[in-house]
Amino acid sequence: MSSSEPDISLRDFQQLIRTMYYEKDVERGVSGTFMWLMEEMGELATALRTGKDRENLEEEFADVVAWLATIANVSGVNLSAAIQKKYGNGCPGCGLLACKCPSTEKP
Amino acid sequence: MSSSEPDISLRDFQQLIRTMYYEKDVERGVSGTFMWLMEEMGELATALRTGKDRENLEEEFADVVAWLATIANVSGVNLSAAIQKKYGNGCPGCGLLACKCPSTEKP
Repeated sequence: MSSSEPDISLRDFQQLIRTMYYEKDVERGVSGTFMWLMEEMGELATALRTGKDRENLEEEFADVVAWLATIANVSGVNLSAAIQKKYGNGCPGCGLLACKCPSTEKP
Repeated sequence: MSSSEPDISLRDFQQLIRTMYYEKDVERGVSGTFMWLMEEMGELATALRTGKDRENLEEEFADVVAWLATIANVSGVNLSAAIQKKYGNGCPGCGLLACKCPSTEKP
């Protein structure tokens, strides 16, 4: 990953999705939004399985993150803070930056 | 979302997950990793449905984003760049920052 490529913070992305879609998202609710997320998850699975169309694969990843941000907005969760809390101090299992947990164990 | 809370860029988070888990992730492969993602997705569904334990809900969101970053690492996709490309110029459907697409249409 080149550092010259554009980057976005998780907080900014979640806010962007909120600005774009919040009104619709709240109307649809958590369960309705989860259906959309699952649909996108299926499309990601297809793109990963076939593995031919790189551009489509990237789009499907973007869509899944976007729908995840949407559900986070509807349920009032700050994704960035949640991630910092769980992963900001290394692996939640062993506490190391390069995880040494057994492969059979989470995460 | 308070701006005083910690934030992380998507590129940095994907890199953090790579540093922590890449060796295991590659060994497990895309399909094996997708199974873990689905397991976490189920846990997120449970947390959203029951809606009682906020801390657990936040953790499940963090885990899903982490496993998504893992699959992106294994399949060589830059999440941050993918998101910028699809959502960096407003809604991919109508092109507006505050989406005006019909509710029945994607996204």
